[in-house]
Amino acid sequence: MKAEIIAVGSELLTPSRLDTNSLYLTRRLNERGIDIIRKTIVGDDRKRLADELRRARASADVVIMTGGLGPTLDDISREAATDALGLALVFHQEVIEAMEARFRRMKRRISENNRRQAYILEGAEILANANGTAPGQWLEDEAGILILLPGPPRELEPLFEERCLPRLHRVESAYQFHTVSLRVAGLPESEVDQRIGPIYSSEPRASTTILASPGEIQIHIRGEGSTIEEAREIAENLSARVDAELGTSIFTRRNESMPEVLLACFRDKCLTLAVAESCTGGMVAEKITAVAGSSDYFLGGVVSYAESTKMEWLGVKNSTLKNYGAVSREVASEMADGVRRRAGASVGASTTGIAGPGGTTEETPAGTVFIAVADDDGVDVHGMNIGGERDRVRLWATTRVLDLLRRRVEKL
Amino acid sequence: MKAEIIAVGSELLTPSRLDTNSLYLTRRLNERGIDIIRKTIVGDDRKRLADELRRARASADVVIMTGGLGPTLDDISREAATDALGLALVFHQEVIEAMEARFRRMKRRISENNRRQAYILEGAEILANANGTAPGQWLEDEAGILILLPGPPRELEPLFEERCLPRLHRVESAYQFHTVSLRVAGLPESEVDQRIGPIYSSEPRASTTILASPGEIQIHIRGEGSTIEEAREIAENLSARVDAELGTSIFTRRNESMPEVLLACFRDKCLTLAVAESCTGGMVAEKITAVAGSSDYFLGGVVSYAESTKMEWLGVKNSTLKNYGAVSREVASEMADGVRRRAGASVGASTTGIAGPGGTTEETPAGTVFIAVADDDGVDVHGMNIGGERDRVRLWATTRVLDLLRRRVEKL
Repeated sequence: MKAEIIAVGSELLTPSRLDTNSLYLTRRLNERGIDIIRKTIVGDDRKRLADELRRARASADVVIMTGGLGPTLDDISREAATDALGLALVFHQEVIEAMEARFRRMKRRISENNRRQAYILEGAEILANANGTAPGQWLEDEAGILILLPGPPRELEPLFEERCLPRLHRVESAYQFHTVSLRVAGLPESEVDQRIGPIYSSEPRASTTILASPGEIQIHIRGEGSTIEEAREIAENLSARVDAELGTSIFTRRNESMPEVLLACFRDKCLTLAVAESCTGGMVAEKITAVAGSSDYFLGGVVSYAESTKMEWLGVKNSTLKNYGAVSREVASEMADGVRRRAGASVGASTTGIAGPGGTTEETPAGTVFIAVADDDGVDVHGMNIGGERDRVRLWATTRVLDLLRRRVEKL
Repeated sequence: MKAEIIAVGSELLTPSRLDTNSLYLTRRLNERGIDIIRKTIVGDDRKRLADELRRARASADVVIMTGGLGPTLDDISREAATDALGLALVFHQEVIEAMEARFRRMKRRISENNRRQAYILEGAEILANANGTAPGQWLEDEAGILILLPGPPRELEPLFEERCLPRLHRVESAYQFHTVSLRVAGLPESEVDQRIGPIYSSEPRASTTILASPGEIQIHIRGEGSTIEEAREIAENLSARVDAELGTSIFTRRNESMPEVLLACFRDKCLTLAVAESCTGGMVAEKITAVAGSSDYFLGGVVSYAESTKMEWLGVKNSTLKNYGAVSREVASEMADGVRRRAGASVGASTTGIAGPGGTTEETPAGTVFIAVADDDGVDVHGMNIGGERDRVRLWATTRVLDLLRRRVEKL
């Protein structure tokens, strides 16, 4: 089965906005064996939208139109659909009543404009929206399935989960997909591809996608079969072989983020953590604390940007700074050990480096970073040179220190 | 003039990738008075792409196709264009020679596949690509302008700047646009709209867009005129009136980020800063240090997540924590003043709050945040309740503390 997604709204054609609903929809449709063959973004233009809808229905089995269901006159998805399909709009009093009940709870009154949202395509089912005034619409005819959904993600997503997925379940698909996602840190993309290429290319019933971001590589293995069980078996067998090849470089098989994995590792072993950051400027602490529950293991962090704060807050020796410079193996080591002791944590970690573009010297070019991890057994320091702009250097160094912490704690 | 953008590539139809080239292209085209009427994302399917191209050329004056110009067999933009336009592809030896020269410098050899990239649409101009092997193509005929561009942004953007903008300049547009962007912090969107609505709706020759993100509102005022001077005058007159209404709530008129504005403020007054964070977990320091040059004023930060680090690293009194709780006006105040003294900085700031979902009590629900700013004249504390999820609370509190710092320093 094939689907198209049409996002409606002139704001989505400006330089600062993207349609992101389609990512969520693509994921949920792919999981059910439905491929996306085209995505279109159209402004609030009734004729253009009607043309687009006609074209999309001719080429896909499922067409999803998002947005343009609001109460104002520039919301034209309903009208464009009647133009394209030659169907009338029917007023549904029960939609108004549901809206009124919802507004009463919020001590607000519906406006005259909201009545526009009670017009439903002749023959379409109403998809009740618990989080907004615009109900979705589901139309099934000989041309296929047409789904109209409200644009705001917090309305669209629950509505799709609760009202659309069960309906899609009824529709049979020739192919079923199952996807296993592995996430890898600490290896370059070229090495990952070289090592697992021979494995995944030996399985024609699966398609493998490798996506690299600074410090992390995602491997998505999608098995295809005539039943979901067959698809799952293919994906899982292949991922087990990839797993055996990459071993501990895989930090999750459940699509968790690195900070989520770290929280689980530290909780498991009842350990605590403190971090000292220079070039990453707070990003390590920020990623760690983005996860709810991180206060279970994370005691605190120091962003020691100036030399004075490195000495006074972390106990880095003046002589070490003088002899080796702030961006050095030795300072990284004293920072990690210092923050650990001062916080009374089981494990300490640090970053010091040149994020650039300023602050470089001949010996330490932009991208030079030292990362240290300290515990009762001592301190490990890793030196690296990270290519690219300031943002990329900071993000790479952050991902790297989180991965080194994970590896250290997994071994403890 | 109207344009359409077609992004080519099956990877852009997966759940994890978006076409972002269109944002850059939209911005540059809008600046030249060219509106985007539709964007389409199509996979590597020759027939579908050719259909799309035919349809787009029929409705827009300029069609830009990005991607699908690589050397491999699934790169089908060239072939789809010949199908749609009925033009032949012509082999250009000089493209191969340029490619060979480039590869020689990198000590690599071109492969047989690269020869595919030397085929240019009959009648098209070659747009030399300094950063990759795929040249762009520019075709002008009675149906309008067709531009083929390589997909990677670091190839597409310089190529568009250097080869396409000068050519577009030749093409006259009936309307010229000029956009002024103002960024506002510290006011709710509804209040901004209420105050400036009467101003912008009185000027039919401009269109105003208001975009809200946590803690910040962007106001884009686009003047339209028959000359660029007229468009600029309309946009600037209107923005001056908006400016007079919103005053110091506008933190930039030059589209800078808040941390960039903060760096300029602190530099201007030769002041230094240290921050102490609890609920924002490092995000404040991270945003500040994301800007190159921030070491000029930022001495350091403390992420005091545990009570022990609040006391030992910042000198918050045990009795204050006991009597008022960690999320309180009093603790925020001691944190800001403590970090300022311990860093020897002119200004200190702090955040303490419940980002949620855990850690809430009846008196302090999720979203309760206290922010303090301290200098030689004393400490100001602001209490607030921020709605939404953990990420939103952290981001709102971060934007808020940066804005309070800006207002304080501007007054000094």
